[in-house]
Formats: sequence, structure tokens, C-alpha cells
Amino acid sequence: MITDHAIYRELAQKNNNKIVLLVMDGLGGLPMAADGLTELETAHTPVMDRLAREGSSGRSIPVRPGVTPGSGPAHLSLFSYDPVRFEIGRGVLEALGIGFALGPDDLAARGNFATADANGLITDRRAGRIGTEECIRLCKKLQEQTSLAADGYQVFVEPVKEHRFALVLRGPGLGGKLTETDPQVTGKAPLPVEDESGTAEGGHTAALLNKWIAQARKVLADEPRANTLNLRGLAKDPGLPRFPDIYQMRAAAIAVYPMYKGVAKLVGMDVIEFEGDRPHHEIAALARVWNDYDFFFIHVKKTDSYGEDGNFDAKVHEIEEVDKVLPDLLALGPNVLIITGDHSTPAKLRSHSYHPVPTLFWGVDVMPDVVQAFGERAAEGGAHGCFHATEMVPWAMGYAGRLQRFGA
Amino acid sequence: MITDHAIYRELAQKNNNKIVLLVMDGLGGLPMAADGLTELETAHTPVMDRLAREGSSGRSIPVRPGVTPGSGPAHLSLFSYDPVRFEIGRGVLEALGIGFALGPDDLAARGNFATADANGLITDRRAGRIGTEECIRLCKKLQEQTSLAADGYQVFVEPVKEHRFALVLRGPGLGGKLTETDPQVTGKAPLPVEDESGTAEGGHTAALLNKWIAQARKVLADEPRANTLNLRGLAKDPGLPRFPDIYQMRAAAIAVYPMYKGVAKLVGMDVIEFEGDRPHHEIAALARVWNDYDFFFIHVKKTDSYGEDGNFDAKVHEIEEVDKVLPDLLALGPNVLIITGDHSTPAKLRSHSYHPVPTLFWGVDVMPDVVQAFGERAAEGGAHGCFHATEMVPWAMGYAGRLQRFGA
Repeated sequence: MITDHAIYRELAQKNNNKIVLLVMDGLGGLPMAADGLTELETAHTPVMDRLAREGSSGRSIPVRPGVTPGSGPAHLSLFSYDPVRFEIGRGVLEALGIGFALGPDDLAARGNFATADANGLITDRRAGRIGTEECIRLCKKLQEQTSLAADGYQVFVEPVKEHRFALVLRGPGLGGKLTETDPQVTGKAPLPVEDESGTAEGGHTAALLNKWIAQARKVLADEPRANTLNLRGLAKDPGLPRFPDIYQMRAAAIAVYPMYKGVAKLVGMDVIEFEGDRPHHEIAALARVWNDYDFFFIHVKKTDSYGEDGNFDAKVHEIEEVDKVLPDLLALGPNVLIITGDHSTPAKLRSHSYHPVPTLFWGVDVMPDVVQAFGERAAEGGAHGCFHATEMVPWAMGYAGRLQRFGA
Repeated sequence: MITDHAIYRELAQKNNNKIVLLVMDGLGGLPMAADGLTELETAHTPVMDRLAREGSSGRSIPVRPGVTPGSGPAHLSLFSYDPVRFEIGRGVLEALGIGFALGPDDLAARGNFATADANGLITDRRAGRIGTEECIRLCKKLQEQTSLAADGYQVFVEPVKEHRFALVLRGPGLGGKLTETDPQVTGKAPLPVEDESGTAEGGHTAALLNKWIAQARKVLADEPRANTLNLRGLAKDPGLPRFPDIYQMRAAAIAVYPMYKGVAKLVGMDVIEFEGDRPHHEIAALARVWNDYDFFFIHVKKTDSYGEDGNFDAKVHEIEEVDKVLPDLLALGPNVLIITGDHSTPAKLRSHSYHPVPTLFWGVDVMPDVVQAFGERAAEGGAHGCFHATEMVPWAMGYAGRLQRFGA
């Protein structure tokens, strides 16, 4: 069932038990051939298999049956926020992910540098995938040469990665339901920002954004590749309920990529900074902050990237790499450990998918079920059945003894 | 899914098929050691195992994932009332459980006799667990020597069991959201009743209760053990929809302990009186009223009590005792039989827990599933899967042919 926070907010109690949520992005897979194994089934994962034997398995549905999630909604769901109810703009995630201190009234957009021809028609939606150094230079140029100061607004143009940047407008009365400028295909002109809310606030904000876009395109006009731009996911911080307040846990996020740091920050987790980008670097960071938090979200990205590349073997290998660092994680003494993915990314499909995600719960009060290994089909027989991903944190709260009894 | 009554109220139809809901309190368990069996898995239960083979199993979630229920909410859920939506005070349960004819405007509280030191600090929250005879004497004394008649209210002080009694106030304009006086730990003074609703009704009711408490404490002052008291769960009958009206079934409750009679009465079941407190006494009572009702709730308490005592073997034995009386139950010819618990009480944890409860459905139109025995892990592979306990009565209604077709 889909989590309603009210009852957990009422029942949550503090203790010393620690919960780890280990997410291998896009973990779920499919066999490449009808009688084959999935990536996870193929991987040699002696530690995960042992945890599955000692614990209890299931398969999680990130959003709704048949629905393929993006990364933002999928993570919201893991954190127990129904993504259908709690919507967040891509711009907000992008800004938070780069550590931008987004205010509650700021409006954020994801920006994409792009290439247009002489008629203004988009020829490359990613500006030839310019490098991050180039992105930094372009953002600096836009920051210096564009302005909405005459209208009473501050503008922040922040580089993210390659062709991607974040745009933030700061000032009074921003809002509305704003459309994106990206036509989604090449050969078409960018669209204007429009407001679908019909509010005065929305109309005003759309006008401001179009004014800034016009300035920015002029500034970029003589660039060889990034001679235009598009804005997507234009919105304010939706002001989600704070995870540490609902569950009475100090929560830490250990992730490499901006998006995942962003979602974690959005629900009030502390993002832990660390050097390196491999699973063992993440476990080292975990060890360093172990005593300062109650709940730990650890995000492994490459499983998803290899899935999207259609690289079955590399995804298998990355899962095995995670298995190898698990002893170091277990040595820290978590009371409850969840191993899961945010969604499936079968190499066969080369994209995110809606397939339920194999999930295991491990802890001293978890009932050992009949499942003997960690995998998609093994998990089908697990005690947790097929469940909505928003149940995950609540079950962990129960297993950790962090919920008071409900009623007499 | 969580039951909504509207559709069942619309579709319920009468016939001659009888449904039995047999509840072993706290049935669900855990292995004492990682590779061990649970209480139910250990018990020799040839009849339940046969019923599981012939019927269909599943595991029920009483309230929400990870949430440990109290007895009241857990039973509401078994009766198909979502306990998060339908809240009831402990005082109401206590009063109904002793057969007190609670009116819709009466305010009820659970009272606990307690011991205080010379400074008024609680030294024993249960007054040395005085016997029931003592409780009766004390309640009589309070009934005679306290009064709110000058304020226009009747007071009823009714003994329950050992240190427990029920207090009922009768008169106009009672209500509010009232706090409990029990400080929950020894070494502290009792708290005053306060109103959190901020209504005139609430403030007035809190003042009345504090006035009565002051009188009562004076009356008790020279008692050797029960020289003070606390009030808990202060509320009115929430006026739940009536089970017989929703399901078009005459419903009987067969239980030994007040709490369970109380919840059954609250939803409109008739409580059957009988001699004795063992499962075979309950089956004898069932046989006696078999022709007068359509739905029978039978409650076995000791499974929970032994679980709370951490007495694994005694819990196993009690489950076996229930198995032995099942042939007499089956001889009556129920069309549908459900065997379940209201929640888990693993001897390992010595308390209620959030673990899903093994449940079996048996009846001529129940699909026999692959499950070959009645137990926690056997039920994991059952046809009913992991389901919310409020689904139980609706499934039984279907199996009993007591629901009309929905739509043409």
C-alpha cells in the first residue's frame, strides 16, 4: 500500500538502531534471451545471497503498475513519498544537486545548451555534448551579460555537467505552471515558456523567463556549438515534509551524482561529501559518519548507466563490485539493511523500465523467508511479496524498533 | 487493499451460509534462533494443516507496514474497520467489555488503581496488582462516596479485573480531546486531565474529571495499596458503522476477555455469555447459538499471553489445544472458516509486533492453493498473498455467496 506519513509521524520513536538503504540504480533487469538470466541473477553475489537467505525478500513497484519512473520520482518513492502526490520539478533537483542553496521562493529550471541553425531550428539538443569546462565558461558569460535586475529579480546561472546547467530566479511573486521550451526533436524551433495555471503569478513568471531567454540567446549567438538553450522543469521547491521530522532519524545521503544528492536534500537529508566515485569510496564515507546519523541512503549509479548502455556484462560486474564491499558495510553493524534499486534498467531494453525491483530486507527481527538468493525470480517467492516502494522505509522502521505501538 | 464499506453495504445479501472467524490472539511468531521454527510452525496441528491444504493461505497486515497494533485497533481491522480511520478510546473498550450499557453521550475512561508515596509520587502503577475482589470493594466505595450530582452528572465506577476499573460520566455536553493522568513511569506524580481540543465542551469535561479525581483520591487516601488512581483513554463511543448492517449478517462474539467483547459490541455484534475460559468452552458456546447467527467471531487469548511472557512452548501448546477442538467446530458445518490472529506476538520479542499474521481461508468455494501446512512461511506462498486485514471479512463474504454481483 502507498505510504501515508501521518501514522509514522505519530508513532516514530528514537533509539540507537541504524538503518541502511543501499540503492543500486536501475538494479532490476531482464534476461537477454527468453531462457536466460537477468544481470542480478548472473552476477556472483555470495554476500547478497547470504543476506537474502537470512532475511526477507520482495519486489517493489516504484510508482504505479506498468509505470516507468524517472530518477527523481523513483527516489522519492524509496524515501516513502508517493511521487504521484509529491511532484518536484527537474530544475529544483538540478539546482539542489549542485549544492545550490535554493530558497523557498526561488524558481529553478534545468537548462540545456543546444545548437540551432540560421533559422533558429534546433540541430543538436545537447550542443554536441560540450564538455563541462565549456559549460562553466558559458554559464559565467551568461551570468555576467544577462540580468533581470530592472524587474527586481536576481538571476543565477550555474553549470552542472556537459551541456547541462541550472537557472534560478530569485525575487517576489514567482510561480505558476510553466511549460518547457525544448521541442524534444531536432528540426523545430524552441517553444516559448507559457503558463498553464492562469494565475497572475504564472503569467508574470513566464514573461520574465522569456525575457531572460531572449537576452541569453543573444549572448550565445556567436558560439560555435552552444548558440542557443532550452529550459525544462521550471518550478519552485515543493516544500516536501522533512524525512528527519517524520521518522525521527538523522538521515545521511551518500551519492556521487547531483540528481540523487538533490532528491535527498529535498527531503531534508544531509548530503555527505567525499572523495572518489566507486562503491568502496562510498562505504568509506559511510564509516566516517556512522556515529552521526541513524539512517543512511547509499546510491550506486553505474548499474543504471550500464543498463542504459545495453552493457549486460558491465552491469553484472558492477553488481559484483557492490557485493565485494558489503562485508565492510556489515562490519559497521547496521540493525536493518535494505538492498534494492530505484527502478529496473534492463540492458535488454537500454532504458529505465516499470518492472518491479528485487529488494531484500535484512536484520535481526526480519523473518527469514524461503528465498535462498538475491535475484528477480528468487524474490518472487519472498515474504514481502510485490509491494509499493513507499512501504520500504516503514518496514525498516518496524524492524528497527523505531515505531511505538498503535493504540492500546 | 484497505476496505471501504460502501460497496459491501450495497452488495451484501442474506443466505444461510455461516462464516466463522477464529482468532488466536498474537498468533504470528518468529524463530527463537535464526534457523529455527516459529511457534505455529513448531505446533503439531494436523487439522489446521489439512484446512490449509484444502483452502487458501495468506498473511495479513493489521494496520500499516511496520506498525505494531494494540488489541483494539487490531480487532477493528479484523472486523474490516481501518483502525487508522476509526479510532476508539481504551475507556470505551473497557466499559463495553464488562457489559456496561454505554450511551452515545457517555464519556468513558479506563481507571487503574495505583500506589503513591507520601509526596504523591507513583510507586506502583498497578497497586501491587490487587485482586479482583479488592477492586470490587474499592469501586463500591468510590461509587458511594464520590459524586458529580451537583454539576448535573451521573458517575459510574465499575470494576473490571485486578487493578483495572471503568469510569463513566453521564450527562450533557461531554467531549473534547482529553489527556491521560498516568505518568507512565514510577517516581512521578499523576498528571491532570487536560483538553487538547480547545473546545468549551473539552475544557468543561476536563474540569469535571479533575474534580472527580480529587474526590476519589481523598476517598482512597487511607488504603494500604490502592491509595490513588489514574485515568486513561478518556473518550466517548465513536459511533462506528454497525457490522450487521454493513454485511447483513447476525453476528455473535465468543470471547473470554473484556477487551475483545468490547470491540465486538462496539461494531454491533452480540456478545455470547458462557461458562469457562478454555477453547472447548468457546466451541460449546458456539454450538449453542449456532442457529441464531450468521457470523461468529471466536477469540482465543492465551496464545498472546504466552507470547508476551516469552513462553514459546506454552504458546505452541495452546495452538495445539485449539487444533484439538477444531473437529467440533467443523462438525457444526461452517461454510467459510478463517483462522488467523489479530497481530503477531513472537515469544522471542515478548511483545506484540508488526510482522504479518498467518491466515487461512477454508470453504467449499475457496481455491485450494499450493500451501500444504499452516504456518508463517508456508503462508508466504499462499494464494491470498500479503494483504490488509480489513480484506478478510469481504473475502469471506464472497466465499459464502453473500455478495451480489456488482453491475450488470
